[in-house]
Amino acid sequence: MKLLYLGDVVGRSGREGVVARLPGLIERLAPDFVVVNGENAAGGFGITGRICQELYDAGVDCILTGNHVWDQKETLGYIDGDPRLLRPMNFPAGTPGRGVAEFRTRRGEKVAVLQVMGRLFMEPLDDPFTAVEEALNRYRLGPKGGGFDAILLDVHAEATSEKMALGHLADGRASLVCGTHTHVPTADAQILPGGTAYMTDAGMCGDYDSVIGMDKVEPLRRFRRKTPGARFEPAGGEATVCGVFVETEPGTGLARRIEPVRVGGRLSQAL
Amino acid sequence: MKLLYLGDVVGRSGREGVVARLPGLIERLAPDFVVVNGENAAGGFGITGRICQELYDAGVDCILTGNHVWDQKETLGYIDGDPRLLRPMNFPAGTPGRGVAEFRTRRGEKVAVLQVMGRLFMEPLDDPFTAVEEALNRYRLGPKGGGFDAILLDVHAEATSEKMALGHLADGRASLVCGTHTHVPTADAQILPGGTAYMTDAGMCGDYDSVIGMDKVEPLRRFRRKTPGARFEPAGGEATVCGVFVETEPGTGLARRIEPVRVGGRLSQAL
Amino acid sequence: MKLLYLGDVVGRSGREGVVARLPGLIERLAPDFVVVNGENAAGGFGITGRICQELYDAGVDCILTGNHVWDQKETLGYIDGDPRLLRPMNFPAGTPGRGVAEFRTRRGEKVAVLQVMGRLFMEPLDDPFTAVEEALNRYRLGPKGGGFDAILLDVHAEATSEKMALGHLADGRASLVCGTHTHVPTADAQILPGGTAYMTDAGMCGDYDSVIGMDKVEPLRRFRRKTPGARFEPAGGEATVCGVFVETEPGTGLARRIEPVRVGGRLSQAL
Amino acid sequence: MKLLYLGDVVGRSGREGVVARLPGLIERLAPDFVVVNGENAAGGFGITGRICQELYDAGVDCILTGNHVWDQKETLGYIDGDPRLLRPMNFPAGTPGRGVAEFRTRRGEKVAVLQVMGRLFMEPLDDPFTAVEEALNRYRLGPKGGGFDAILLDVHAEATSEKMALGHLADGRASLVCGTHTHVPTADAQILPGGTAYMTDAGMCGDYDSVIGMDKVEPLRRFRRKTPGARFEPAGGEATVCGVFVETEPGTGLARRIEPVRVGGRLSQAL
Ligand SMILES: [Fe+2]
Ligand SMILES: [Fe+2]
Ligand SMILES: [Fe+2]
Ligand SMILES: [Fe+2]
Ligand SMILES: [Fe+2]
Ligand SMILES: [Fe+2]
Ligand SMILES: [Fe+2]
Ligand SMILES: [Fe+2]
Repeated sequence: MKLLYLGDVVGRSGREGVVARLPGLIERLAPDFVVVNGENAAGGFGITGRICQELYDAGVDCILTGNHVWDQKETLGYIDGDPRLLRPMNFPAGTPGRGVAEFRTRRGEKVAVLQVMGRLFMEPLDDPFTAVEEALNRYRLGPKGGGFDAILLDVHAEATSEKMALGHLADGRASLVCGTHTHVPTADAQILPGGTAYMTDAGMCGDYDSVIGMDKVEPLRRFRRKTPGARFEPAGGEATVCGVFVETEPGTGLARRIEPVRVGGRLSQAL
Repeated sequence: MKLLYLGDVVGRSGREGVVARLPGLIERLAPDFVVVNGENAAGGFGITGRICQELYDAGVDCILTGNHVWDQKETLGYIDGDPRLLRPMNFPAGTPGRGVAEFRTRRGEKVAVLQVMGRLFMEPLDDPFTAVEEALNRYRLGPKGGGFDAILLDVHAEATSEKMALGHLADGRASLVCGTHTHVPTADAQILPGGTAYMTDAGMCGDYDSVIGMDKVEPLRRFRRKTPGARFEPAGGEATVCGVFVETEPGTGLARRIEPVRVGGRLSQAL
Repeated sequence: MKLLYLGDVVGRSGREGVVARLPGLIERLAPDFVVVNGENAAGGFGITGRICQELYDAGVDCILTGNHVWDQKETLGYIDGDPRLLRPMNFPAGTPGRGVAEFRTRRGEKVAVLQVMGRLFMEPLDDPFTAVEEALNRYRLGPKGGGFDAILLDVHAEATSEKMALGHLADGRASLVCGTHTHVPTADAQILPGGTAYMTDAGMCGDYDSVIGMDKVEPLRRFRRKTPGARFEPAGGEATVCGVFVETEPGTGLARRIEPVRVGGRLSQAL
Repeated sequence: MKLLYLGDVVGRSGREGVVARLPGLIERLAPDFVVVNGENAAGGFGITGRICQELYDAGVDCILTGNHVWDQKETLGYIDGDPRLLRPMNFPAGTPGRGVAEFRTRRGEKVAVLQVMGRLFMEPLDDPFTAVEEALNRYRLGPKGGGFDAILLDVHAEATSEKMALGHLADGRASLVCGTHTHVPTADAQILPGGTAYMTDAGMCGDYDSVIGMDKVEPLRRFRRKTPGARFEPAGGEATVCGVFVETEPGTGLARRIEPVRVGGRLSQAL
């Protein structure tokens, strides 16, 4: 199976980048399943139903989020009605939405997508390690034994240590563990010893002449002046659509190839 | 001018990687100046005079550090006597060592190296933005006007936002702004609009089958169990020597090329 | 019932203060149950079996801890064998020790002691609100209905907001909610609307001419210099033994009186 | 000299408490100088010019603030025109307002008020220790030698350790070091060995049946649910006006008496 995973879509630049580039990527890479992180799609803060639809129309099969999931008020009411929109699974029990979802590809393959949020330098949610452990006991990889053809785990986290540790926790039990949240792609794509593809951060789909996707003037001013000022607005330059492409072994669901994806905009192009 | 910058050397694996790979890199890339971050060179924690010498002997011209600079007690006494060993410049006034140093290459070019530490999710040091602003007023780029042939700024920081903001602050006034500290290389090498080469993190020189260079068993256990256990020890597998290579314009000292470097070990090879 | 609760015992000064003052307090106040927080009793860092015994001998019925619980290596092995020594209940499942314990007073009254640790500005443990909610569903107050004569909840936390919120969560279901960890007694003892006695922090049993119980020279130096130096050592002056005294209603187990306790040392004396 | 210092005024409850109680306190205690922290006076978030006037009219001589100083947009424009309204002095150079101010009492005594903000668990401002050291070199206590009759230092900070350390730094050089920000009064009023009156936190002027002054329902919900909801609103019950009263030695400006003040509302009454 072929999986395409794109990082945090930031504002109009990110949305336009994904809508413009995804058809070409789909044609060229022929992914069986496409995931994107949409937590910054609405002006940099959260996501809306309309934007979800726009992304689905562009070829996205599943949308992930993160700490910005509730930035748009409507999402709390909307998320339960959209089975393809996830939020981290280690929000407290009773939180609207879901952190795990099962999908069938057009060819009938079973895919599970899991999202978890880290706690280092972030809001204190439930233990991500326990959450992942429990989820991977319920969702088993391995089409041969009746398990899933592919399992994707998104680790929405700040600290590289926590992301790498969760990668090792899932190694051999997921097809891909990929991080999001820092809005900068990492260059450490690898297949871990147990067979799981891993990359610390997918990077954002946004303008990289910016401060993590936001127009750089106000963030830079605020770092220096410590006083409130203008609102943060997404930077408007052309997005680099960033993410990762993975091919799995048919029998095991483990990875046999992982490649970074960077298309358009300022960053060096990959795949 | 050609600059080679390598990230945090972690333990024996990292040291052996640098010592083994640097001669080949020097032969192939012919850098005029070589910088490495040594804050984790001594068993993962700090650096010693002996290790500094080992790195200089391998071809390193300047060693940077970071939050781990004082992990080895001897460093507080040693650092003032080694003009090539830096610590972040925004430690309080009176701190041993220096955060800025001037060098002459064999061909007589003037190089300034600056290091600053971020504050987001880190110890509260003096303001890094003010520190960089002041340093760049003293150290001016541009050989034509009597300035430096190259200025390198290392941003030792956790948060991508702070690193990118400091990159923009220095844009047009430094040859290269490169981050360290997260131990994961980023894939966002670019030349900023003002002509400064930028990459969010150089990545570590260490074993990437690990948790940021440390043997993965104990970090993973500690994330889950929250009880003390064994000491953290560097992972022992072959290092990927990670960093960045930059070429500057002779007249301006600004960048005309930036390329990631990844040699050896598990990660995809670059340059 | 009468309950005496003393805050974090810091080093020799704190231990000597408790051993010297507790007999007099017991004689004067005639508490039916005495709790003390011992997480800093061993040189400021953790506790040992020997010190536990010393505190029991002085009249303590139950010892609480906190984030410093494992500072002394022996505690991990010791804690399971001492039913009177607690650690926060929201450590991960499987952690040695217990966060809840039941006691019988000499007169046969049933007492439950619960300890939870906050997460704001602290290590990310399991959700303290869920943990307290579940514990208070298992341990019911109210001798009339077969419940406990007294329930004490210690909130070992940094942030006043989290402590007050946990106080309200337990209001009407515990006899006393008292905080520890900041090492400074608060002056907000009150009975909450539901009948639970509340105080944000018991304060330490230690020398208040110090930095939270530690000799002030090295902490002050380290705040200013950001370099390692001497070890932190407990301050050696006479301790003020700090805590809170509560009287419960016999029928309900709720509080009818709460008074701060401050005996010896530099602080104004109370009760 | 007699100094009255009141803590963070929270919302209408706090303002009404101060306006109602201050005249009586002034009559009874006859303070020569009255300071209040107003950072939460406007609906819990910031302060306005109108509220400043209301507090001055009630007898306040100087208003301090803290991390909430800019919550009301108008304050950035207003603060430079009001010499009695302070913000922490360790904001970056160029920040509107001032962190130190000199006053003359009706009897002609010279008073200096200094405010500094801590950095532990807070925004990374400039070093508070250096800021206080420099300020105390400029503002010298001691009417005999031409210095100030009284120097007050407010430490707006979260961590008790940082507050105590700053107290010791100023010991012998200020009349009073008092903390604010946690919204809970501490019971550790004392005169430090060098003669400076010290209390870790003044507490708020607000309703103590709350979560740090805010209506308790929404904070408690948010701690548990981690989803956005209603706005935080100040609790509406009667305020306890909290603070500290200090008497200085005429010759030295050092303290000879420090007493906590708690008037009205739920907390035990003091002074
Ligand atoms: Fe994001
Ligand atoms: Fe995020
Ligand atoms: Fe490092
Ligand atoms: Fe570091
Ligand atoms: Fe403690
Ligand atoms: Fe503690
Ligand atoms: Fe406040
Ligand atoms: Fe505050």
